Amino acid sequence: MVKQLKEYWLVETKYFTFASPPDEFETESGEKLGPITVAYETYGTLNKTRSNAILVLHALTGDAHAAGYHKGEKKPGWWDNMIGPGKPIDTNKYFVICSNVLGGCKGTTGPSSVNPKTGRPYGLDFPLITIKDMVDVQARLIEHLGIDTLLAVIGGSSGGMQVLQWVVSYPNRVRSAIPIATTATHSPKQIAFNEVGRQAVMADPNWKNGNYYGGPLPAKGLGVARMVGHITYMSESSMNEKFGRRINGDLKPFKFSPVFEVEGYLHYRGDNFIKRFDPNSYLYLTKAIDCFNLGNGKELSECLRGAKTRFLIISFKSDWLYPPHHSQEIARACKKAGIDCIYCELNSNYGHDAFLIEVDEQGHLIRHFLDRAAQQ
Amino acid sequence: MVKQLKEYWLVETKYFTFASPPDEFETESGEKLGPITVAYETYGTLNKTRSNAILVLHALTGDAHAAGYHKGEKKPGWWDNMIGPGKPIDTNKYFVICSNVLGGCKGTTGPSSVNPKTGRPYGLDFPLITIKDMVDVQARLIEHLGIDTLLAVIGGSSGGMQVLQWVVSYPNRVRSAIPIATTATHSPKQIAFNEVGRQAVMADPNWKNGNYYGGPLPAKGLGVARMVGHITYMSESSMNEKFGRRINGDLKPFKFSPVFEVEGYLHYRGDNFIKRFDPNSYLYLTKAIDCFNLGNGKELSECLRGAKTRFLIISFKSDWLYPPHHSQEIARACKKAGIDCIYCELNSNYGHDAFLIEVDEQGHLIRHFLDRAAQQ
Repeated sequence: MVKQLKEYWLVETKYFTFASPPDEFETESGEKLGPITVAYETYGTLNKTRSNAILVLHALTGDAHAAGYHKGEKKPGWWDNMIGPGKPIDTNKYFVICSNVLGGCKGTTGPSSVNPKTGRPYGLDFPLITIKDMVDVQARLIEHLGIDTLLAVIGGSSGGMQVLQWVVSYPNRVRSAIPIATTATHSPKQIAFNEVGRQAVMADPNWKNGNYYGGPLPAKGLGVARMVGHITYMSESSMNEKFGRRINGDLKPFKFSPVFEVEGYLHYRGDNFIKRFDPNSYLYLTKAIDCFNLGNGKELSECLRGAKTRFLIISFKSDWLYPPHHSQEIARACKKAGIDCIYCELNSNYGHDAFLIEVDEQGHLIRHFLDRAAQQ
Repeated sequence: MVKQLKEYWLVETKYFTFASPPDEFETESGEKLGPITVAYETYGTLNKTRSNAILVLHALTGDAHAAGYHKGEKKPGWWDNMIGPGKPIDTNKYFVICSNVLGGCKGTTGPSSVNPKTGRPYGLDFPLITIKDMVDVQARLIEHLGIDTLLAVIGGSSGGMQVLQWVVSYPNRVRSAIPIATTATHSPKQIAFNEVGRQAVMADPNWKNGNYYGGPLPAKGLGVARMVGHITYMSESSMNEKFGRRINGDLKPFKFSPVFEVEGYLHYRGDNFIKRFDPNSYLYLTKAIDCFNLGNGKELSECLRGAKTRFLIISFKSDWLYPPHHSQEIARACKKAGIDCIYCELNSNYGHDAFLIEVDEQGHLIRHFLDRAAQQ
């Protein structure tokens, strides 16, 4: 039984390549890019009417591996508590797709991929990309999988921005949308934190204007960037609970060693990040997020008007990076545009991280929303 | 008339040196340090009974120059809107003192000062210092000025921590205390932001374990640290008002140039900081702040019990670095300890910066509180 279960949950990342020259992909900024490979995973089975497909969109440092286990690995995908048989995004009912974003470093073409024109990694020759570009690439993957209309698009944080962009870019191909802990317009505060992270990376002498591949990595800079990020993902009270002012047992002689547990945690997170993430991807993806402005001068409700998509919008009270009032703005715009919309603000202590941690209430909401969406 | 006014406001920094070997100052950590020079300024006149002295305590990157103008300079001291003849801290009535903290870099002995034992700057040979050490040094200055009891100690942010420490260390020498936008215990969130700043400094290859004097400075690292700091000093809404998503006119070809106004502002602040602040001082002072824990295991009210000091505690609603509930905790401890205490939470959009900006309401409160304190 256990063996069966494990086998069921063994998943593999697949790859889809398109936009080979001369039919290159044109980015929103007007640059040509190709070929593009997309890393993706699927869970569950597409039904005969191809009407049960759900696209899950990952946040900044996520990847295509949303659920199940890769062979030989002990850690499941990043949203495994939400996706699976009998889970809120139920793979007994739905065909779930998750792909690594354009510009990423987990199998999808990004700045660390080889530029066919030079035979070397793109580095800063990679074009600036946007959330819309990511979504356009996902749309090509969906077509490749033979799916015309998605039952739902779901994602938290910058995954939520992609959800919103899907509705605006492809209003007729998305039956329902679940943007979680996100915003329709990146605020100056959010931009500021990302800019600090980018500056930390670029201040590292190993960054070398993005040409560090094959040499020493800008690990310290990326580590500092990740530390800033992790502070913004937690809440004051979750940090109080998790760390308080507890001191690490091992006091080293160096005056500025981390002594508080919270410092040790941030160092651990920062130091490990270089092992799994490309610093240039960090620059490109945070820039794409900062440039996200769904309305782009127009009123948000005008961008959404006409969409037949039903919305479930979720925010978390203690999230100060994407605070609830950003989600409320999306909900107001939906109402104004005559779009069917449910807004839920959940009590959670976990800050922005809550969308990855709070399974029970969030899962309950998503499960029932999807059930209803599937029936209509 | 204008000329007279200007002359009146010409102020000078003075210096006091003590703790020359063998009578060195002993830090809280048990290390010996000396001689110590303290840079300080005074405004107004000490009365005959020596009962009108107010000690103003600066925050992290402040200095002794709190009010008036230095000869040839166009910018007044950092709290000039609060201190002066007829101003809330009225120099027609009070004798106001402000000194640069121990470990600083604006005239008081710190890591950039010359170590008499080596003839070179201390660097990391400077001992770790605490808020209590800063206060003990200030107490020596006050004695030197012939003052036994202070009418008031006033300060915001880490200046507020010094205010609280004054009451605990010298309960009989402080008649009233005004801690503003501060905390009695540095929280893990506050520690985390400081640690990111320190890591940014120490990740800079020019930092060289603190031995950068005479060579290139760790300017990029200190710049990133300052950028993080400035984000925490503002509020989401003050950033929205000040910058929004406005783009700088001058779009440079480099992909990751700052394009948003908020980025430009942070760069400006970060780039300029190296001109006025020593990176090692940044490490020492933030560490002192992080280690601040007035109760230190005891209940806060127990530390304050017995003090005859009257308190005016001020916080600002939009301050998310030292949020009002930290000030409320101090107020609760005062009440519990039977200490006369007024707590005021002011409506301000400016976040933590409000203590430097909000003159009207804050000034009104301080003026009347001091008037009453002086009469008793």
